[in-house]
Amino acid sequence: MIEDQIRALSLTLPAVPVPLAAYIPAVKSGNFVFTSGQLPMLDGVLKYKGKVGAEVSEQGARLAAEIAVLNCLSVVKSIIGSLDFVERVIKLTVFVNSDPAFLNQPEVANGASELLLKIFGEKGKHARAAVGVNVLPRDASVEIEMIVEAKTNVS
Amino acid sequence: MIEDQIRALSLTLPAVPVPLAAYIPAVKSGNFVFTSGQLPMLDGVLKYKGKVGAEVSEQGARLAAEIAVLNCLSVVKSIIGSLDFVERVIKLTVFVNSDPAFLNQPEVANGASELLLKIFGEKGKHARAAVGVNVLPRDASVEIEMIVEAKTNVS
Amino acid sequence: MIEDQIRALSLTLPAVPVPLAAYIPAVKSGNFVFTSGQLPMLDGVLKYKGKVGAEVSEQGARLAAEIAVLNCLSVVKSIIGSLDFVERVIKLTVFVNSDPAFLNQPEVANGASELLLKIFGEKGKHARAAVGVNVLPRDASVEIEMIVEAKTNVS
Repeated sequence: MIEDQIRALSLTLPAVPVPLAAYIPAVKSGNFVFTSGQLPMLDGVLKYKGKVGAEVSEQGARLAAEIAVLNCLSVVKSIIGSLDFVERVIKLTVFVNSDPAFLNQPEVANGASELLLKIFGEKGKHARAAVGVNVLPRDASVEIEMIVEAKTNVS
Repeated sequence: MIEDQIRALSLTLPAVPVPLAAYIPAVKSGNFVFTSGQLPMLDGVLKYKGKVGAEVSEQGARLAAEIAVLNCLSVVKSIIGSLDFVERVIKLTVFVNSDPAFLNQPEVANGASELLLKIFGEKGKHARAAVGVNVLPRDASVEIEMIVEAKTNVS
Repeated sequence: MIEDQIRALSLTLPAVPVPLAAYIPAVKSGNFVFTSGQLPMLDGVLKYKGKVGAEVSEQGARLAAEIAVLNCLSVVKSIIGSLDFVERVIKLTVFVNSDPAFLNQPEVANGASELLLKIFGEKGKHARAAVGVNVLPRDASVEIEMIVEAKTNVS
């Protein structure tokens, strides 16, 4: 069971984040689930605020990416009922709020990618784009969106 | 009829925007329609140019997002023939040309998201990512791309 | 044969780029292939580093976009076995590491888009978003991700 694996990593699936605005956390179409962009929200508090390479360290941003991707999983679960119904993770897009001199966006994104491998194993191997941006909503350090494939016949 | 709803909102579906370059406005694959990134073009003129939080106000940018998302709908119609063939809106990505101190990208993106809800009702509920960037083509304040699901058997 | 066409353009399909991190170059789900973000890597060297409009010229960035999109094709081939199994190119997202005064992201992205048309003809016509960002991994000037539709029954 995937949630057992999350607990075995001493992690907790967060409550489904409330969208900041007029949209919904994720949409399923065919077997694809598209999540909204998720921030490093933990218990309603935005963690690790600021630009990576300036106010936030690379290591802090890795932890922020872990939190954001757990929020992605939480919204996926809210749509398909259980993370056991994930056939595979397809794609992450990781936006990193970056000081212009900070060039290690891939290392930040690894916080999310490595966690997915630990949680899902082979099914967690995904395509990914990591890019820098000059600002993110609420001064978040990281924003992550995810596409997963659900098992067939999951409503 | 969805276009009646657009007119009831005192809005007009713009002419299909001419791509700025060597690509096409949208592609349908399976039941998915992927639009190209759309700018706030109105009657051939780019509206609300500049960085949000500096040259463009948050309210101006919301209006820019409305125009850009109408352009998305226009290109969707050009591919599937009628907006009545939209099964649902799946996903928006909203890039906001942001002054680095501007943190309200979600409020800007709401200009697009709220309009989709008014036009499509339940079918307009979508996943979304809103991110800040330091510059957009032609100094546009907003760029929006959309994925929609078309009804089955729409060619 | 699509690779003959690439050779006829005096171009070479690069070796599959090694991901910078904990992810894989591309994922196939249904008939869709999603690539990871590709940089202008050529023979293991990142070409045309720096901000476009400052350290890198528009023309240099066009060439960088050509290299990056060839890397996209290389990873697509690694997943479906041959570029002849591409039913069509669906979507490009082109991130341009931009000086804030540089507004010609579409012209940069045309380096990739025009090459796809030369290689694939009608099947190469795609939707596209081109956006500016303040920094990219390893100071790359361009990062491109691609979605293609594979022919049915390609494993």
